Amino acid sequence: MVQLKNKDLYFVSSNPNKFREIEPILRQYGIVSQLIKMSIQEIQSESVHRIAEDKSTYAFKHLLRPVVIEDDGFYISSLNGFPGQYSSFVYKTLGNQGILKLMLNKVNRRAYFLSVIAYNDGHTLKMFSGKTQGMLSKAAAEGGWGFDPIFLPKNTNKTYAELGRLNRKSFYSHRRKSIEKFSKWYITKRLQSGNR
Amino acid sequence: MVQLKNKDLYFVSSNPNKFREIEPILRQYGIVSQLIKMSIQEIQSESVHRIAEDKSTYAFKHLLRPVVIEDDGFYISSLNGFPGQYSSFVYKTLGNQGILKLMLNKVNRRAYFLSVIAYNDGHTLKMFSGKTQGMLSKAAAEGGWGFDPIFLPKNTNKTYAELGRLNRKSFYSHRRKSIEKFSKWYITKRLQSGNR
Repeated sequence: MVQLKNKDLYFVSSNPNKFREIEPILRQYGIVSQLIKMSIQEIQSESVHRIAEDKSTYAFKHLLRPVVIEDDGFYISSLNGFPGQYSSFVYKTLGNQGILKLMLNKVNRRAYFLSVIAYNDGHTLKMFSGKTQGMLSKAAAEGGWGFDPIFLPKNTNKTYAELGRLNRKSFYSHRRKSIEKFSKWYITKRLQSGNR
Repeated sequence: MVQLKNKDLYFVSSNPNKFREIEPILRQYGIVSQLIKMSIQEIQSESVHRIAEDKSTYAFKHLLRPVVIEDDGFYISSLNGFPGQYSSFVYKTLGNQGILKLMLNKVNRRAYFLSVIAYNDGHTLKMFSGKTQGMLSKAAAEGGWGFDPIFLPKNTNKTYAELGRLNRKSFYSHRRKSIEKFSKWYITKRLQSGNR
């Protein structure tokens, strides 16, 4: 069993909802993390990887500790990938009702969420991604945050928001997939470096 | 009358439509400009001024000549300022039809365009803005580029696209306003510095 250091990692985000999803998964892998609430200037890019990389570099330079950041995008097939990386701006301005309006009369309701985790300790910059395919619902469910009320992941008839209330979101979540990939890599790295 | 240097300014943009609008106005002020087609990494910001400033710094560092860049945003009142600074991404994904769909049943159709010009010669960074208020049309007009087919500037019943065909867009244009402010400042500066 891996011996824990007091704080292994800083998870840097302005969004505590993300940390609430990520922290329990890290803990399952014996990784202790702490949220640093910090808003980082994002570049305008159509690549989540590019944004995540950039943010992790900024966060590391600022904190000089191993940092983890997560960035995600929401891509709707019949809207040519809208809202993509601009999901927080689009959520703030149009909201879920705006998305549903854009989807009126659209036959193809496919969409996916993409999560990218970037780990940066000044020497190593490593990225891990997780994707969940699904569909847009016809109406917004209650609760949840962001686009969770309108996204039905594949193989269930419940939205992320409803699954969240049942503590089942993590089973389907794009974010869970990226953070698990990261965790597996991280505990192996820690073992190898003797940092136990 | 101001004596012209061969090339006074580089206008840096990936969009030749902008230069086509800007160049004749600069010329009226006796300013000779040249388009440098260059795509600059944009920061994600809700301030056009911030973006323009950042891009001009990048462009100057790259070219080491006085540069002018222009950035603009399109703000729809009943959509909480959407699409704002993300107009090129939104145009590419949703297009004018997407905007008109979002506006279905909206009573308030007010919108405005904001243009920001940033001049940067390594010593001086100066910004000039121009704003044009107007309304969204009910249908997209033919021709024009970007959101021109759906924007009716105040005091006319024609869209930017239709005005463009009549060579009248410049009279109303947000971009004309910012570039005129810049031109007036620039020719005064040039006179004062004896750079004639």
